Amino acid sequence: MNIAVLGGDGYCGWATALYLSRKGHSVSIVDNYARRQWDHELGAQTLTPIRPLAERARIWQELTGKEIEIFVGDVTDYDFLSATIGAIEPDAVIHFAEQRSAPYSMIDRKHAVFTQVNNVVGTLNLLFAIRELQPDCHLIKLGTMGEYGTPNISIEEGYITIEHEGRRDVMPFPKQPGSFYHLSKVHDSHNMMFACKIWKLRATDLNQGVVYGTATDEVMLDEGLINRFDYDDVFGTVLNRFCVQAAIDHPLTVYGRGGQTRGFLDIRDTVRCIELACVNPSSPGECRVYNQFTEQFSVMDLARMVQVAGKKIGLKVQIDHLPDPRVEAEEHYYNAKHSKLIDLGLQPHLLSDSLLDSLMNIAVKYRDRIDSSLMLPKVNWRQPQNDRKQRANAAVPASVS
Amino acid sequence: MNIAVLGGDGYCGWATALYLSRKGHSVSIVDNYARRQWDHELGAQTLTPIRPLAERARIWQELTGKEIEIFVGDVTDYDFLSATIGAIEPDAVIHFAEQRSAPYSMIDRKHAVFTQVNNVVGTLNLLFAIRELQPDCHLIKLGTMGEYGTPNISIEEGYITIEHEGRRDVMPFPKQPGSFYHLSKVHDSHNMMFACKIWKLRATDLNQGVVYGTATDEVMLDEGLINRFDYDDVFGTVLNRFCVQAAIDHPLTVYGRGGQTRGFLDIRDTVRCIELACVNPSSPGECRVYNQFTEQFSVMDLARMVQVAGKKIGLKVQIDHLPDPRVEAEEHYYNAKHSKLIDLGLQPHLLSDSLLDSLMNIAVKYRDRIDSSLMLPKVNWRQPQNDRKQRANAAVPASVS
Repeated sequence: MNIAVLGGDGYCGWATALYLSRKGHSVSIVDNYARRQWDHELGAQTLTPIRPLAERARIWQELTGKEIEIFVGDVTDYDFLSATIGAIEPDAVIHFAEQRSAPYSMIDRKHAVFTQVNNVVGTLNLLFAIRELQPDCHLIKLGTMGEYGTPNISIEEGYITIEHEGRRDVMPFPKQPGSFYHLSKVHDSHNMMFACKIWKLRATDLNQGVVYGTATDEVMLDEGLINRFDYDDVFGTVLNRFCVQAAIDHPLTVYGRGGQTRGFLDIRDTVRCIELACVNPSSPGECRVYNQFTEQFSVMDLARMVQVAGKKIGLKVQIDHLPDPRVEAEEHYYNAKHSKLIDLGLQPHLLSDSLLDSLMNIAVKYRDRIDSSLMLPKVNWRQPQNDRKQRANAAVPASVS
Repeated sequence: MNIAVLGGDGYCGWATALYLSRKGHSVSIVDNYARRQWDHELGAQTLTPIRPLAERARIWQELTGKEIEIFVGDVTDYDFLSATIGAIEPDAVIHFAEQRSAPYSMIDRKHAVFTQVNNVVGTLNLLFAIRELQPDCHLIKLGTMGEYGTPNISIEEGYITIEHEGRRDVMPFPKQPGSFYHLSKVHDSHNMMFACKIWKLRATDLNQGVVYGTATDEVMLDEGLINRFDYDDVFGTVLNRFCVQAAIDHPLTVYGRGGQTRGFLDIRDTVRCIELACVNPSSPGECRVYNQFTEQFSVMDLARMVQVAGKKIGLKVQIDHLPDPRVEAEEHYYNAKHSKLIDLGLQPHLLSDSLLDSLMNIAVKYRDRIDSSLMLPKVNWRQPQNDRKQRANAAVPASVS
């Protein structure tokens, strides 16, 4: 298939582009390097020393003979996007090209507005470009499990049958997102459903859980292909951050009681899920929703697993409870369905098997690159303005445990 | 109370500002005259000859002794908005300052993006301005009944109790909006609920039905206070348009079979509902939702009522069925709850009583100002680009009946 990966220089995007290229698909990457720019803004960087995209693609071609074409530009620029879609003529577009950090969106008003405008306009532009130029193309859009929040009923995959006063309908599952970023994904989901309805587009909305790990078969081929591994308080996902903290003897930063439960998946399952969506396209007019994760854990579950794994390689891991900088339930019911991708053939990698190899060992290997000033949360949901540059211990008391 | 009316130069905003001023509240209007600009863009104008805002306010002060202060600027400009909220220090902000036409949002990509960015950023800015400057202020935001779409179950007021697999939760009512405009209001609703949760703001989301009429007690005091009466295919609401069509012997333009059923209300009830929300504020942290309409009718119900009323004043009214330019169910179940404003004291004006006085007679009085080229729909939901300026009969076959 001819596949465009928007945001292909990012964490999930790069792993996906290489995986699909190795599987024989013709892959193009579209990216404006915004993710690298945000690192500069925040004074943070990936644990792993990633190379510039052009160099990564050159190394990939030398190793495999496979070319990945690169289009540099912004999906919120319709002239650029429509020219790019017109040039690629993709069978599938995989849309990772959004601002994807909840804390980043909660820094202040400008970051909230940027996140929503960037994400909503990018997706609107893409819907129009597909409708105008490539109407049979399958749009595969990354959503997030965070769109659902933590309701007191089980979470279905996108739609729920509601019986009410003797009548019944299948309706979009009600969304209760927990940040301006998560809200932007909810806005996207509503826009996509509508575009599929009026224009008979094909779309798959992948509500992804929290991704962990960095080692896919492809990026392990060469140091020059290495993927991002974010651990800072803004872009680092919780499990990556815990492993890095363990590697430098920093207490694990559990927010609140740590009963917050979420869906998680290995990045090797991310790339496989994307492939499954590509080769099983939705029908014209269908906006299909899959919940893309493999296991659910509470934050305390993860902290304890990292503690056990750390012990095996000689690390002494402490757990600290910080006041939760987010506004969220610290204990709650959580049961999210996730059978549709399994039904298509996904065989999950389990965290218990990969924690040491894919996470702890990477963290230890690059220990010298860790900046310990990036560990504590500096963005508080309750404040309309956060100075991300202030000293961490001025922002949040170090520990309440 | 000290009340800021954002969008107070528009149709509902002007009527509301005068009503609240007469009731003794201190009223300020914030407006950037965008609504007048869109008329210029579309080559349309209100049936009624409205005066410039400064003149309207001067006439009001001469007649009543009451001053309405005017702040000219755009709510998407945060410097302007925060300075204005800081200057007014309102107890309540009534937010009408959005692009409110579904067809306008469906003209093409630029109009869709403009509508969503304008509406979402304006509301985000307002939430931040209230949080930063006036955190106890009550935000009264105009939503629309169109956020819900036409589900096959009864529509509740904002929230619904869902029982699912033996568990139960109260959740936001699932939204299935029918245009990029209606989607922008859904985005706003989600953003508001979240801001109330994290910042303990007070908010009321008024999901308003289709408003009709122009004659409130206040605007009838003087010709110089007259309100808008839109009848064109883009900004005209259906009942206003039918009355104007009847007045010039143009067939009523029913889209499709006309079984589309919606909630309606008299503009005299709009202003009363706003007052009821003001004087009964929601609690800190509460995002309350009211369905603001008084009666529900199908489009064919309305067409037949206009036919009967027209006959009484000597008009011969024909009904035409055009292919529906929208993507919507032409026959469907519809039962929307709307008891909360009644419980607060709303006494509805019924359409059967006001159709002749408040609508038909206005249409006949200003018959000479009617532009018959504005009657047929020129924006088709199924097309990603519509040339609003093309001749009407090139866009949609004149009639299928």
